[in-house]
Amino acid sequence: MRYLTAGESHGPQLTTIIEGVPAGLSITHEDIDIELARRQKGHGRGRRMQIEKDQVQILSGVRHGKALGSPITLAVENRDWTHWTKIMGIEPIEEGVEDEIKRKISRPRPGHADLNGAIKYGHRDMRNVLERSSARETTVRVAAGAVAKKLLFELGITVAGHVVEIGGVKAERVPYKDLTELQEVTEASSVRSFDPKVEQQMMDAIDQAKENGDSIGGVVEVIVEGMPAGVGSYVHYDRKLDAKIAGAVMSINAFKGVEFGIGFQAAQLPGSKVHDEIIWDEENGYTRRTNNLGGFEGGMTTGMPIVVRGVMKPIPTLYKPLNSVDIETKEVFAASIERSDSCAVPAASVVAEAVVAWEVASAIVEQFGQDRIDLLLENINRSKVHARDF
Amino acid sequence: MRYLTAGESHGPQLTTIIEGVPAGLSITHEDIDIELARRQKGHGRGRRMQIEKDQVQILSGVRHGKALGSPITLAVENRDWTHWTKIMGIEPIEEGVEDEIKRKISRPRPGHADLNGAIKYGHRDMRNVLERSSARETTVRVAAGAVAKKLLFELGITVAGHVVEIGGVKAERVPYKDLTELQEVTEASSVRSFDPKVEQQMMDAIDQAKENGDSIGGVVEVIVEGMPAGVGSYVHYDRKLDAKIAGAVMSINAFKGVEFGIGFQAAQLPGSKVHDEIIWDEENGYTRRTNNLGGFEGGMTTGMPIVVRGVMKPIPTLYKPLNSVDIETKEVFAASIERSDSCAVPAASVVAEAVVAWEVASAIVEQFGQDRIDLLLENINRSKVHARDF
Amino acid sequence: MRYLTAGESHGPQLTTIIEGVPAGLSITHEDIDIELARRQKGHGRGRRMQIEKDQVQILSGVRHGKALGSPITLAVENRDWTHWTKIMGIEPIEEGVEDEIKRKISRPRPGHADLNGAIKYGHRDMRNVLERSSARETTVRVAAGAVAKKLLFELGITVAGHVVEIGGVKAERVPYKDLTELQEVTEASSVRSFDPKVEQQMMDAIDQAKENGDSIGGVVEVIVEGMPAGVGSYVHYDRKLDAKIAGAVMSINAFKGVEFGIGFQAAQLPGSKVHDEIIWDEENGYTRRTNNLGGFEGGMTTGMPIVVRGVMKPIPTLYKPLNSVDIETKEVFAASIERSDSCAVPAASVVAEAVVAWEVASAIVEQFGQDRIDLLLENINRSKVHARDF
Amino acid sequence: MRYLTAGESHGPQLTTIIEGVPAGLSITHEDIDIELARRQKGHGRGRRMQIEKDQVQILSGVRHGKALGSPITLAVENRDWTHWTKIMGIEPIEEGVEDEIKRKISRPRPGHADLNGAIKYGHRDMRNVLERSSARETTVRVAAGAVAKKLLFELGITVAGHVVEIGGVKAERVPYKDLTELQEVTEASSVRSFDPKVEQQMMDAIDQAKENGDSIGGVVEVIVEGMPAGVGSYVHYDRKLDAKIAGAVMSINAFKGVEFGIGFQAAQLPGSKVHDEIIWDEENGYTRRTNNLGGFEGGMTTGMPIVVRGVMKPIPTLYKPLNSVDIETKEVFAASIERSDSCAVPAASVVAEAVVAWEVASAIVEQFGQDRIDLLLENINRSKVHARDF
Repeated sequence: MRYLTAGESHGPQLTTIIEGVPAGLSITHEDIDIELARRQKGHGRGRRMQIEKDQVQILSGVRHGKALGSPITLAVENRDWTHWTKIMGIEPIEEGVEDEIKRKISRPRPGHADLNGAIKYGHRDMRNVLERSSARETTVRVAAGAVAKKLLFELGITVAGHVVEIGGVKAERVPYKDLTELQEVTEASSVRSFDPKVEQQMMDAIDQAKENGDSIGGVVEVIVEGMPAGVGSYVHYDRKLDAKIAGAVMSINAFKGVEFGIGFQAAQLPGSKVHDEIIWDEENGYTRRTNNLGGFEGGMTTGMPIVVRGVMKPIPTLYKPLNSVDIETKEVFAASIERSDSCAVPAASVVAEAVVAWEVASAIVEQFGQDRIDLLLENINRSKVHARDF
Repeated sequence: MRYLTAGESHGPQLTTIIEGVPAGLSITHEDIDIELARRQKGHGRGRRMQIEKDQVQILSGVRHGKALGSPITLAVENRDWTHWTKIMGIEPIEEGVEDEIKRKISRPRPGHADLNGAIKYGHRDMRNVLERSSARETTVRVAAGAVAKKLLFELGITVAGHVVEIGGVKAERVPYKDLTELQEVTEASSVRSFDPKVEQQMMDAIDQAKENGDSIGGVVEVIVEGMPAGVGSYVHYDRKLDAKIAGAVMSINAFKGVEFGIGFQAAQLPGSKVHDEIIWDEENGYTRRTNNLGGFEGGMTTGMPIVVRGVMKPIPTLYKPLNSVDIETKEVFAASIERSDSCAVPAASVVAEAVVAWEVASAIVEQFGQDRIDLLLENINRSKVHARDF
Repeated sequence: MRYLTAGESHGPQLTTIIEGVPAGLSITHEDIDIELARRQKGHGRGRRMQIEKDQVQILSGVRHGKALGSPITLAVENRDWTHWTKIMGIEPIEEGVEDEIKRKISRPRPGHADLNGAIKYGHRDMRNVLERSSARETTVRVAAGAVAKKLLFELGITVAGHVVEIGGVKAERVPYKDLTELQEVTEASSVRSFDPKVEQQMMDAIDQAKENGDSIGGVVEVIVEGMPAGVGSYVHYDRKLDAKIAGAVMSINAFKGVEFGIGFQAAQLPGSKVHDEIIWDEENGYTRRTNNLGGFEGGMTTGMPIVVRGVMKPIPTLYKPLNSVDIETKEVFAASIERSDSCAVPAASVVAEAVVAWEVASAIVEQFGQDRIDLLLENINRSKVHARDF
Repeated sequence: MRYLTAGESHGPQLTTIIEGVPAGLSITHEDIDIELARRQKGHGRGRRMQIEKDQVQILSGVRHGKALGSPITLAVENRDWTHWTKIMGIEPIEEGVEDEIKRKISRPRPGHADLNGAIKYGHRDMRNVLERSSARETTVRVAAGAVAKKLLFELGITVAGHVVEIGGVKAERVPYKDLTELQEVTEASSVRSFDPKVEQQMMDAIDQAKENGDSIGGVVEVIVEGMPAGVGSYVHYDRKLDAKIAGAVMSINAFKGVEFGIGFQAAQLPGSKVHDEIIWDEENGYTRRTNNLGGFEGGMTTGMPIVVRGVMKPIPTLYKPLNSVDIETKEVFAASIERSDSCAVPAASVVAEAVVAWEVASAIVEQFGQDRIDLLLENINRSKVHARDF
């Protein structure tokens, strides 16, 4: 499976084309809209999240609720495009009116793609950069991920994300019965926290940051349950599934780190406390006593839950300004404010779910067959029996 | 640029074919052997590192010391192959003698690819897995990385790795004059540490682990200096260079996490303390007052040094055994010992250098031209002038 | 550069996302619409070509007439979608009404993807296949090709296609002054022929086929002028540009062969009559006395015009029926009629232009730089000077 | 599956790394050597074919005759490397001796990559080009293809190539009982012809060309039997299997055209004579009355034999010289003679088999599963039953 995304933040729409989804998968717009809505929630989001109730249009690849096997087009309109038709217009404009229309940006914001992107593509107007580098793009990554989640769901594989740290407030590792419980609790939390004790603290941290004209980041965790063992491969470095997931998580806007299982803690513990003992019983076959390695050994799934975390830096658009330099005048200025979110970590956990789901689903389809969802399920079930009886 | 690697740990040799190296690059076997030797050093390595003084053979793509533009073949012989010709023989063996020859492995080691790989590929003999999943493969990744480092060197870009944590002992962030100083100091350190105060502690931790029949992991850091701004791209998620580097680092055997700049610390600090202010002067053009983001904004280089860290878990082969299950008898056993390294973190920092260098060099070649090293240099220099005068 | 296409023949729209177009390229909807119109012309086209005056919508990646460097979304609506909203509806339908709504197809047409596609994807309703396998998809391939042609145009490279054979009527090789002349004459011809003597015969052949309830195919030729030498590469089999073009031409619906220069005639002539002698003069550098090899030696451009031909089989939808088998009843039937074109060769020459332009533009961008059209032009001009002075 | 090839014509060896071969496939060096020997035979080959009896070394990925699932390294030594260690030496040479050692080539041969490659990579010594652009590279493409053929063989799929035209002498389409008969007859023919009537004529044409100091080309045909229906796909242009095969055939050195089934003849016949009627019976399911489309409809296999032809131009190295220009002196010269083959078409048919087998095997593995040969066979058999009962 592969997908391309397109669209500027204030252009007419975001679009993605998804290629390689097995025929027969059930997909409706609700499957996707529910994920788009989840992405727009969360304590600390600014005004735009209220304006835009994102809704997907499925424009190809699905007929009467079932995937055809052909490429799926998903589009999400930008509701305020009507106010931007001149500034972001597609067609050439007359010479004289440029200045009044373009709302040209010559002041790069620290922490954004503005300056590097302008240098790279030769844009003197940095609006040409920020319109695409904006996290608005994650809307259609979530849409594509929604299709991947649906595919996994039909194969008995569940993906769930939650927030484990915001602005230095860390959730404790509370045990959960199953992913359903985790999903229910975090869905009800306005910061997507499973630990009820820190929820209020997280919200306070967000509010405090906002009051300070500042912003905060955090850590999200994604868990995938129901995976067969042996997805991914050790035979070549670029086929390791954990590596692919790491790349995907790091490609989310503002993410600066990723880790599996105990992650960076593995630098402190001895091997005897890190590796997961292998156990076996007739009913379940091989499992592990612990899951410190987060569901991966040798670039392949172990059959234990995949546990991956990513860190998001604070949103770089602030009331509390940082110094920067105008590229026209070379004068120092205090960096401009574009938008009012002070924390986007809860939303980022939804994006993380999406990109992890995508990588996992792609690996599954690659390994177990790409044509039909029914054959895929048959092959996975056969594989699970094989693993149990191995 | 792309490369494939091949070879079993006790087969005749490791091989890599590197495709897409610009013509005219100077390469000799010394450029590569020096990196292979660096990979074999480090306090805590076991016996095999002494046996095998790895040396590369260049078998194509280079003539009279210069890259031809055609694929480069690099081979590194396994010196003890002579003792394994039967066990790892290529040709079919007679029916009766299988048992005596094969040294079949039915006992999967926790933390290794053994069990998942066996299930995936249907191998009842897990030697078929571990021979390839072994970190021996990193030999030729280092060889490929040596070519990438040489390419970057000719373009004025330096890559250096060092160890910042071993078994819970953390180096302090000591400032260095330039990468040359960092390279000289860490090259002389048997744990590749730049902080002289912790060097002995790290060695002690390694020795202690060995005495305990245990193993320890750590954190390595790779720094890349001299990058032009705007390498990578924000326009599509899979073109972000930091994401590619993250995937590459995570694909190193035993790595469980990766972060850029302040990394996971970004979850604790407010945005005003995280983002790097943009400054400008005539001589240098745009730079940043700090480098908290590790040289990346929006998936592109900022022109500041790339700073990336990866965490390696303890080597999973231990004297102190962990429980596992024999796949033939289903009996519990204490997992077997294959090898005697108790810490491979110093070596892993050399591997990390190699894979980071590869990703950076690939991105450079893709952006600035793939045919000739002289044109590449010309284009990069033009780009640096453009960035300064922007 | 890469692009994905999506869309069913009677779905709401065709869509393509194009990724990797250099920033600064001038693009307007007219650049694309003119190519869409060319694709719809030609003697022998049926009714649908009259209904649908295809017009593109640019939905991302272009601002005020210039490419931003970000992915470009192009959409072309299916005008008669309003009549198909039930039959091709996206959302699930109620159980009872399926039969009346679906217009299920159980009768595969010889020469179409119907049967193989149905077997592959498990579709009992072959409408699920033919909606995507339809040549309607070439609409957005032409749109993507229009962007590639524009890019090449700005670099001084011209792409032109014409028809050299229809239903056994062969054009003679009439010499042309330059590609502009070829374009003008063929644009005015309703069969896109440059040879005025055969134009009427070709139309007669088409009319005759139609009268017979039959269809005919033909051969199209695409010429690319202005290429620098050395685009493509001999160093690896999958980097040969002629091979990529061959794959692209063969991927056009109904194409069954492709050849360069004298092509299959090369099996009859001795080497001394085939290879193109190399000549040199100060003004032009190296050129060839002839161009039998169609602009390629060793998988690279020679600097002479690229000349590639492809053969299109007759449209497989006929009044004159062929036998087939109903997949439900297994009864033999005379294959159904879907559409009334008797010859689509003139249109196919426009599609061939598009796919050739795409491959050439991609190779150019890969070799000479992907970020900015101005740098691309600079690099190509430098390369041409280098080649002349070599 | 993917593979890279490497190696210069007079370097130490040719190498290929093949990645993605399913575990459990039986492979021995004989499987490969037999194909290497076939490539070296054929009336009209020169001296080098006698010197070099190519033999493969399997250096990874196979243990005790079975594929491990890990990358397979195949190496073929250049026997006369010992005479070229100075001219083609890897290590730098001293300044003064360059001229005597290098055997520098400044005279590009028409029809070769020499001039374009030299311009592209900036080589003033065209030996740097011709060493890699040489058809010697096809040795390891045949080796990789041998592995693909073996894989297909175990799945009940047979690949056979033969020569259908040499220097204007065309074989008649003689019917064959089955591919085994075709293989036996063509294997015994020194021009790989199935038509006994033209064999002598073809040899005479070759001898005549040699006498004239000239060379001739020809047409080869590859047939693949036993394919399941629905391999490839119509859903996206770059997933059409016939397009991939076309690209692969065109990437063989000196090939200038490729066609499927009746190929270019499709431009002359009406649709009613071209498309293959679909028939059905209980035992075989769906088949076609004819196979004019060469086994492909809509970019997918129909289940009928794949029939693909490619045209090879005459070898461009001649006794009968063509004019060219020395790049140092700019003087006209009569192009040099490197080698004495006057016709390589029989060998090219073996190369064509190899590249077609590779594409087909890759598509099979992608569609039916990549891990294990036993599962692959199971999935294909299931698919064939599904197709029969469809």
